[in-house]
Amino acid sequence: MPSETTMRTAMQAYLDALNNRDVARIIALFAEGGTVEDPVGSGVHDARPGLTRLVGGLPDGATFTLDTPIRASHGSGAAMAFTVRMVLDGKPIQIRSLDVMQFDDEGLITEMKAYYGPSDITS
Amino acid sequence: MPSETTMRTAMQAYLDALNNRDVARIIALFAEGGTVEDPVGSGVHDARPGLTRLVGGLPDGATFTLDTPIRASHGSGAAMAFTVRMVLDGKPIQIRSLDVMQFDDEGLITEMKAYYGPSDITS
Repeated sequence: MPSETTMRTAMQAYLDALNNRDVARIIALFAEGGTVEDPVGSGVHDARPGLTRLVGGLPDGATFTLDTPIRASHGSGAAMAFTVRMVLDGKPIQIRSLDVMQFDDEGLITEMKAYYGPSDITS
Repeated sequence: MPSETTMRTAMQAYLDALNNRDVARIIALFAEGGTVEDPVGSGVHDARPGLTRLVGGLPDGATFTLDTPIRASHGSGAAMAFTVRMVLDGKPIQIRSLDVMQFDDEGLITEMKAYYGPSDITS
């Protein structure tokens, strides 16, 4: 089972890599066959193409900031609440999101689920 | 599928009922056969006995406060990060927790998973 520190470090690295648009770093955090569902309810996708699309679709200047410290667990999952801030069509918006991740024994992410709905996107 | 508002309202009601030690209210938020895993990694339990135990074990004065607004989703799940503050053996502690809940079509909770590890408990 991955340690709490391993999971927390990987999730912080994921946010940092999103802020740096570092797709290779993001993909390296995931296990072979890892999946993403972003947002929950939109369907589960293979992590590699899913994350490449996600990062490619980010507007310049989009930032990802933790709202409260990352939570670990007594198992192989962890979770974090964060806010994405960006400017779309000249208007600032924020998306309040929350990612839940599962990890394998090597500390690689096997599953990511992002919780946010239309009502979590505000101006 | 439950609406975003339905899920968010139920989760706020759950926190409010925890603050009021209102076990009947908490149980009424759950569907028949609902389950809880609190914390993740400690095993899945039937909601009714699991929550009765949880509330019964709370020390006087324990409080539950959202750290950031509740997140909904495009599906039938929602999530929230909150902090539990209590005094145990004369010492103040806080547990940073994060609950992920699944809902049925009537807006009742079918599954609750609480993410926190030993390292999320601080003085």
